[in-house]
Amino acid sequence: MSNIDYEKLMKPVIGFLGCETPKEWLDKAIQNLDILMLDHANCEKKAASTAMNLMFRYSFFTDLQVKLAQLVREEMLHYEQVLELMSKRGLELKSLSAGRYAGVLRKEIRTYEPEALIDVMIIGAFVEARSCERFYALASRVDDELARYYRYLLKSESRHYEDYLALAMDVATSSKLKNPKEDIQQRIAHIREVEKNLILSPDEMFRFHSGLPI
Amino acid sequence: MSNIDYEKLMKPVIGFLGCETPKEWLDKAIQNLDILMLDHANCEKKAASTAMNLMFRYSFFTDLQVKLAQLVREEMLHYEQVLELMSKRGLELKSLSAGRYAGVLRKEIRTYEPEALIDVMIIGAFVEARSCERFYALASRVDDELARYYRYLLKSESRHYEDYLALAMDVATSSKLKNPKEDIQQRIAHIREVEKNLILSPDEMFRFHSGLPI
Repeated sequence: MSNIDYEKLMKPVIGFLGCETPKEWLDKAIQNLDILMLDHANCEKKAASTAMNLMFRYSFFTDLQVKLAQLVREEMLHYEQVLELMSKRGLELKSLSAGRYAGVLRKEIRTYEPEALIDVMIIGAFVEARSCERFYALASRVDDELARYYRYLLKSESRHYEDYLALAMDVATSSKLKNPKEDIQQRIAHIREVEKNLILSPDEMFRFHSGLPI
Repeated sequence: MSNIDYEKLMKPVIGFLGCETPKEWLDKAIQNLDILMLDHANCEKKAASTAMNLMFRYSFFTDLQVKLAQLVREEMLHYEQVLELMSKRGLELKSLSAGRYAGVLRKEIRTYEPEALIDVMIIGAFVEARSCERFYALASRVDDELARYYRYLLKSESRHYEDYLALAMDVATSSKLKNPKEDIQQRIAHIREVEKNLILSPDEMFRFHSGLPI
């Protein structure tokens, strides 16, 4: 894939997000690749687990089952790949506390259906889009091996973000919401603001999805 | 793969189990392919979920993480494949209560570590081996499409059973058990009896892992 293709791939992802990752976070990241890789591994495992929990909670939409099953497979493969890269670098699997990002986003999930499921999907889309944007920005700053790997991830991460958005739209239109498109657009705009604030506000703990380093 | 290869593949699996599936269950199964396929789909999803839960509970054994991640991927792929076969046959995803099999086996898990983890792995090995044995027995009795699919599954299901046994042995030897091999062998013999009894005793509810039809 040429650079031009990457730019084309990234344009809708970056357009979907409320802001780009600040340079301060990128500077911090390349100084803390060990934490970044360990947290990335954890994120892949958690993303797979979240998708699988959704598969059990919403058992009877076949489309959702298939899309989420594929997502679980890809996240698991990425997890294995990050573990292998870590192992090559002598980095051990160890305990790492979670950052604030996912927890704060999850607080936005409404407590009634189908709105709860729609919110989960929209948040999923933002997490995937942000990951994609960070891998792209990191790729030009890390060593060749990691850069190759981060670029390889862009294709699937950008698809995951689209899958989550499509699922949110499916759920909204197939349920009894009065104005499904309007509801989705409003929620996207709201979550976009919350996510942007997480990225741009000071954050004590450096993690893959953390905010501005203090 | 020729028939001879299948027999070679199946020999250790059948030797590991306490009994073969009775003809009565197979007769019932081919009369209830719709329930069998739906329950098979559920089993693949549950197997993936069990493996993923183990990945969270035992986070720091890299070997275990990688083997279980691969297992999750394969179970998810099988799940997607069964859904596709079901969809081709006009079978809908719907609610299906669980049989007694997994619940009774899980009661055998000791309540202290590392014995609990060892038991989970041994039970995992039996579930995979039984699935493998049933797919093999079913393959000569169902339609060509399903037969081809069940034969395709044998290779991975038989590997899963070996993976679980190897992991049980890894955990036993790397922990402080006095006689790891003896402990494992005793537990295998014990679970073998429990599992055999589940297969040969009368069972009201027909499922993929159910006992003798009443």
